[in-house]
Amino acid sequence: MTKSIANGRLYGIGLGPGDPELLTVKAVRLLQAAPVVAYFAKSGRRGNARTIADRWMSEPCEELQLFYPVTTELPFGDPAYVARIGGFYESSAETIAGHLVRGSDVALLCEGDPFFYGSFMHIYVRLKDRFAVTVVPGVTGMSGCWTTAGTPITWGDDVLTVLPGTLSAATLKKRLTESDAAVVMKLGHNFSKVRHAVLAAGLMDRAIYVERGTMTSEIVMPLKDKINNEAPYFAMVLVPGNGRRS
Amino acid sequence: MTKSIANGRLYGIGLGPGDPELLTVKAVRLLQAAPVVAYFAKSGRRGNARTIADRWMSEPCEELQLFYPVTTELPFGDPAYVARIGGFYESSAETIAGHLVRGSDVALLCEGDPFFYGSFMHIYVRLKDRFAVTVVPGVTGMSGCWTTAGTPITWGDDVLTVLPGTLSAATLKKRLTESDAAVVMKLGHNFSKVRHAVLAAGLMDRAIYVERGTMTSEIVMPLKDKINNEAPYFAMVLVPGNGRRS
Repeated sequence: MTKSIANGRLYGIGLGPGDPELLTVKAVRLLQAAPVVAYFAKSGRRGNARTIADRWMSEPCEELQLFYPVTTELPFGDPAYVARIGGFYESSAETIAGHLVRGSDVALLCEGDPFFYGSFMHIYVRLKDRFAVTVVPGVTGMSGCWTTAGTPITWGDDVLTVLPGTLSAATLKKRLTESDAAVVMKLGHNFSKVRHAVLAAGLMDRAIYVERGTMTSEIVMPLKDKINNEAPYFAMVLVPGNGRRS
Repeated sequence: MTKSIANGRLYGIGLGPGDPELLTVKAVRLLQAAPVVAYFAKSGRRGNARTIADRWMSEPCEELQLFYPVTTELPFGDPAYVARIGGFYESSAETIAGHLVRGSDVALLCEGDPFFYGSFMHIYVRLKDRFAVTVVPGVTGMSGCWTTAGTPITWGDDVLTVLPGTLSAATLKKRLTESDAAVVMKLGHNFSKVRHAVLAAGLMDRAIYVERGTMTSEIVMPLKDKINNEAPYFAMVLVPGNGRRS
């Protein structure tokens, strides 16, 4: 399909892990130039993405809120979740497209890096053949977490495995056992299962728990010292590599 | 050991994947404030890190060049390589420490993210107990590459495996076969082996070759279309995930 030059351009703006100073220079420039700034949030909330961007939104712009119909209330694999979230991405893409066809650029805010487990990707695949798109990579949440923890994650020939906490306990244990270094993301309700998998893999002594890395409310502690099972969805477990050091 | 407040502070500055606009706001601020800017380079070269930082080094500062005694001339596992590079990191750390004990802050430039396969880590482990250190995470080279390629890398429950191309052909094939999404870094002399491993794992149709992602000289192509075996060390192969899409 031909992309009309009269249309606006979609920007996927990586915001980094949470500290507003960890936006890139390019992200700040494009965010400040955008007439429409869109962002996902839990219904009734302002959302992390909009909060991170706050410092840089000095110019008046139209804000387009995209409220998830469901977040962690239903499990990921549930067909009802898949159907509702799919319909939501479809209608969000069309809302954004409405601005683009009127010639207005839209900046869609993305926590972390847009192409790394990002909601942005569901909009991107729906609009990339119809509109011009620029994606600005960001510092990932995991980079923010291992930096906050003061822990190099991979050395020399280390293999790094990034695991969603939504995987089964058996799969988590197997993958952790095979890894030199690992990051387990998406904790939330999965935290207790993840902790057991780390213990079963014999990695508890190296494992670090990080919550909201680089934000003012960040928490870092050895995983073995975390005595409750309360963890937000965006918390992570890090298992730093032991690879060759010179 | 007590850290004297009269000493300078070491900054590990993540520069991102290559586009100078992909430095973070924090990286630019700290870089411009540093009286001494240190960087690794191949002997006689200016090096990628210093080139990326160029746009932001408007203020006069002392430049401290740290020339690798050896880069890819010897294989990683070679004891001669390990001994020489270890001695180099040791003397580099002491050179930097010399500035710090005189009360001068030192910013050490790091391509990508400092704690992700970074040379900085070898300095960090030697100095972190003696001096105050601040690390600024950066956009990784791999985020730059998948963004340049216009390819989301991980969806939903995808597992991502990051593999150094220095691994054996058999290990590469096994790891690639088990991965939902994969990134193979450190190509260079390993390129032909990596290509064969991707083919053997049945992933050639999804694999993308990226060279110098986000730099002006970047190259992106399907891996199957790359007909020669010439690849720089900092090129990558990406295998995007196919995970759940809503």
